[in-house]
Amino acid sequence: MDVGIVGLGLIGGSLAYDLKRAYKDMKIVGFDHNKEHCIKSLELGIADKIVNDISEFKNLDLIFLAIPVDGIISVLQGLNNINKKTTIIDLGSTKEKIISAVPPSIRKNFVAAHPMAGTEKSGPTAAKKDLYHGKTVVLCNIEDSGDIHANLAKDVFEKIGMKIFYMDAKEHDKHAAYISHMPHAMSFALANSVIKQENPKAIVALAGGGFKDMSRIAKSSPDMWTDVFRQNKKYLLNAIKSFESEFSDCKKMIEDEKWDDLHEWMASANRLHKIL
Amino acid sequence: MDVGIVGLGLIGGSLAYDLKRAYKDMKIVGFDHNKEHCIKSLELGIADKIVNDISEFKNLDLIFLAIPVDGIISVLQGLNNINKKTTIIDLGSTKEKIISAVPPSIRKNFVAAHPMAGTEKSGPTAAKKDLYHGKTVVLCNIEDSGDIHANLAKDVFEKIGMKIFYMDAKEHDKHAAYISHMPHAMSFALANSVIKQENPKAIVALAGGGFKDMSRIAKSSPDMWTDVFRQNKKYLLNAIKSFESEFSDCKKMIEDEKWDDLHEWMASANRLHKIL
Repeated sequence: MDVGIVGLGLIGGSLAYDLKRAYKDMKIVGFDHNKEHCIKSLELGIADKIVNDISEFKNLDLIFLAIPVDGIISVLQGLNNINKKTTIIDLGSTKEKIISAVPPSIRKNFVAAHPMAGTEKSGPTAAKKDLYHGKTVVLCNIEDSGDIHANLAKDVFEKIGMKIFYMDAKEHDKHAAYISHMPHAMSFALANSVIKQENPKAIVALAGGGFKDMSRIAKSSPDMWTDVFRQNKKYLLNAIKSFESEFSDCKKMIEDEKWDDLHEWMASANRLHKIL
Repeated sequence: MDVGIVGLGLIGGSLAYDLKRAYKDMKIVGFDHNKEHCIKSLELGIADKIVNDISEFKNLDLIFLAIPVDGIISVLQGLNNINKKTTIIDLGSTKEKIISAVPPSIRKNFVAAHPMAGTEKSGPTAAKKDLYHGKTVVLCNIEDSGDIHANLAKDVFEKIGMKIFYMDAKEHDKHAAYISHMPHAMSFALANSVIKQENPKAIVALAGGGFKDMSRIAKSSPDMWTDVFRQNKKYLLNAIKSFESEFSDCKKMIEDEKWDDLHEWMASANRLHKIL
């Protein structure tokens, strides 16, 4: 199978590692605007060949789009005359805007996927073997993909050890706002609030595991996350408001010294781990 | 050396493991209101002996207070006629209120410490060997502790592999609000906001590493954290307001579609990791 990967970063690079292990004869053709990423990917064995133009992807069996979500929409326009047999899978964190931007001529070729895996790092050197193993991938509006394309996508994700969830794109974007996008906003806000204090170095010198966990994803790429926030504006704002309301309740209980209520509120939060 | 530990949970139990490895002949006497914790601690080798009353701690060399911060204040009152040679070290997450509640008769005996280590779990079965190794411990207002007591505290923390920071109690509480207490409020609020959605199970089914990290400490003990929030009310509210302001700026940039500003705000957050 000949596979193209657009975007040789953490997501695309890690995928290449896992695909090569799952499929013995797989050849991976890479494309990335960043020439250093291209060179690094060849060195690391992520890509077997680099192309300079997306048009050279025309006769591949399968193309993955592993770039920021605005980039996915733009690349999809350039693939509008792709071979009917080529499957295109995007790996973006938003789904509704991407799906609605797919050119009708290639809607059957297209499978919308969101693997719930990643780290705060980026670039091909951040790529990790086994990043996807045991993780969840959400496939959206799969009924609009052609059967051969939907089946290939399922096979590939299963073969690299992922658990597949099917979901409507709107539902996905709503859930992803709570599970991923809004927590990124929280982490960025935490980092900025600490940085703006008088002596941030003295503060972070005391950091234990809790703070490190809460601030880890504040290291994430602004390029990637500005796109995500823009594309998921509506649901993200809903999630942000829901968090703000909880956080403000907490503040008010402290101000009013309602310690029993605060205890109950914390105990309620503990319940999350019964379903997580 | 004969050591007493009040509170046979994660903090006290982990400490017992590390102390016993560092000091060959150490005997540990335990006290805990929870009888199951006492039994479990004997089984696990955390405590060598259990006492039923704090007054039996009178002739020990060293006493650790590893209980919620309001409990520390109350136990300290019962130790007000302790032997002049006995060192008392508290391990609470707040320092100013505790220090000001130490009976003057035992102020020299007392060393205020905050080890920046822990997990979201509790009880003696959550105790972990090496929890403290390589972590930071903050000693506050050490100039008010008697020399032999200050020196013993330093020796013990160094011997279990901790890095010692010295700090004024007010400064500690201010920093701890940002680094630990407010992030706990964030995590509790995140958990509650997800739980209150229509179908929280469907949401958390998609959870990746980011959400797991951000919600981990929402599992923490309400008993412990209600006390901490009460004792550090002033600085915690300042930290909460600083976070709220950042988070609200983020919301406004999304509402107003100021994507360049949002990108810059995320890039600013990235800088935290240069000092962390």
